[in-house]
Amino acid sequence: MRTPDLRTLRASPQRDAVEIVDQTRLPHALVTVTLTGAPDAARAIRTMQVRGAPLIGATAAYGLALALRADPSDANLDAAYSILLGARPTAVNLRWALDRVRAGIVPLAQAKRAMSAWEEADAIAAEDVAGNRALGEHGLRLMESVFARKNGAVQVLTHCNAGALATLGWGTATAPIYLAHAAGIPIHVWVSETRPRLQGARLTAWELREHGVPHTLVIDAAGAALMRQGRVDIVLVGADRVTRNGDVCNKIGTYEKALAARDCGVPMYAAVPSSTFDWSLASGNDVPIEERDADEVLRPTRGDPIAPMDTPVANPAFDVTPGRLLTGLITERGVCAADADALGALFPERTR
Amino acid sequence: MRTPDLRTLRASPQRDAVEIVDQTRLPHALVTVTLTGAPDAARAIRTMQVRGAPLIGATAAYGLALALRADPSDANLDAAYSILLGARPTAVNLRWALDRVRAGIVPLAQAKRAMSAWEEADAIAAEDVAGNRALGEHGLRLMESVFARKNGAVQVLTHCNAGALATLGWGTATAPIYLAHAAGIPIHVWVSETRPRLQGARLTAWELREHGVPHTLVIDAAGAALMRQGRVDIVLVGADRVTRNGDVCNKIGTYEKALAARDCGVPMYAAVPSSTFDWSLASGNDVPIEERDADEVLRPTRGDPIAPMDTPVANPAFDVTPGRLLTGLITERGVCAADADALGALFPERTR
Repeated sequence: MRTPDLRTLRASPQRDAVEIVDQTRLPHALVTVTLTGAPDAARAIRTMQVRGAPLIGATAAYGLALALRADPSDANLDAAYSILLGARPTAVNLRWALDRVRAGIVPLAQAKRAMSAWEEADAIAAEDVAGNRALGEHGLRLMESVFARKNGAVQVLTHCNAGALATLGWGTATAPIYLAHAAGIPIHVWVSETRPRLQGARLTAWELREHGVPHTLVIDAAGAALMRQGRVDIVLVGADRVTRNGDVCNKIGTYEKALAARDCGVPMYAAVPSSTFDWSLASGNDVPIEERDADEVLRPTRGDPIAPMDTPVANPAFDVTPGRLLTGLITERGVCAADADALGALFPERTR
Repeated sequence: MRTPDLRTLRASPQRDAVEIVDQTRLPHALVTVTLTGAPDAARAIRTMQVRGAPLIGATAAYGLALALRADPSDANLDAAYSILLGARPTAVNLRWALDRVRAGIVPLAQAKRAMSAWEEADAIAAEDVAGNRALGEHGLRLMESVFARKNGAVQVLTHCNAGALATLGWGTATAPIYLAHAAGIPIHVWVSETRPRLQGARLTAWELREHGVPHTLVIDAAGAALMRQGRVDIVLVGADRVTRNGDVCNKIGTYEKALAARDCGVPMYAAVPSSTFDWSLASGNDVPIEERDADEVLRPTRGDPIAPMDTPVANPAFDVTPGRLLTGLITERGVCAADADALGALFPERTR
């Protein structure tokens, strides 16, 4: 099948800009925005015009390259690195991509830095597509085995958007879905709306429709009830950061889905490209959890606020699912248990 | 303290109408609606102008009395009973109240029926207030014991609205909160917004504010994360129907809160007046779960839809929490485990 690529990010051939889809406007409008410098890229990440751990990483990499195009000095490198790194705290891909670009260009003469940074960003983008495809093939085996056991469509539950829109192509949690759909395996996806920003409703439902994958939208709390009713065969989610012990930091709501999956005997996997592992952290308890504006909770759409605007609100954007609750992680190298030993075996060069 | 009574339902002295607060308009407007017959009452229940198991029951009782005032015949009794019973399927209080009123008036001469039905509805309303107060006293003991163990405010998490607005006074889950607050126990309530209808945000936050109880609004998925962070001392919810084995059917989202409470070692109780027990059902698996309109999911407020209006949607309004996940039930007779033996001991006349 052709790569599910929703043109989330396109680098200009002139290497002087990147064009992104403004995901805050979906599904009502497909609007593109042109980024020409690091401040643009940082703003796009902060305001969630681009979101999803892999796409955040790639956008930041191009942002750094754009900054060096304007001024390749160490001072400007540091300034751009800093503004981009500060855009969002939780997804580790942001730091991973920035560190990778910076490490490549620091030894270079200033005249070569912008070109080299751009090529590194291109490589990050290309590797994301290839990694998600590889991850998807491993996930496809899981879908095939579910399908072999049952009569009828494979019932998948997903949360938030770990889709093509969260990446440069394929998506992470959606890669096995798209491959299974293309392989003729009947499939139906329960799409959890994902309050407060509703990425499930606005983005996942939209991209599944674009690709012709049958789906049904539900509120977040319905996921557990559906599992208890035996209406879910497998839960697939993405991740914003996975620590050495297999703990998964992902969109808030993932933890409770894992609890329900465990209680109901439903297998649940996080689909994680290796760029999303944080080998420096021992456990999910160490991951910084972004707290976002009250306004996201109080005004779900542009309608009436759901409570008086001065109501006290807490709005943590992510939660941590202990690895013990997950059946496993799907990576580009294969499927493994969400624990330190299994990750060490799959990524020995990172964990020894 | 004075009874927390938000005038959810007021019977007219002339016994010819009841005035309700239209809860679909809260928190933005406090609007009352006058019901003068069974069709009015059924519509108010169906459209959720009144909601909450105890208030649904009382409204239906008055609805039946209003019908008999117009026409006390058996035929009209049956018709009114039927239209009211069909208004909503899940809360057992509806059938309980209708059966109670009907049983009292069937043997009577037609001329006496309307008056007798009205008095029975009055009794149901008065018993609700008294029962919630008694239940609240038992719950207060739990709050006191949490407070005795910790420094600082007792952190309560609740879901949906099992408050004064769901009853004739005090509320169920809120009765211990109001009594603890009045007793000077510092208390803070995490209010789970409760998609799709947002009763937590629209109703619980509003009534806690009216009573001066500190609170913070969160999305539904945040409850589990807050528990995992040690930021919740006790979870208190209501119920729409509790079966003989202690299974609790309540607003969707309750099950996943119980899973998180169990995983995190947080005590969780359902506050249940005896009118909410369904002694005829062996387990929660037998409770009919209401499926409501897609529109509730697609348009959280009057703003933009969260996905195209033709997106397939499932919208189950309730879920079932197995009694094994709960620390206990708070009833007007005391606190007991959520299982058949404990309920049999507390309500021997209903279970032998």
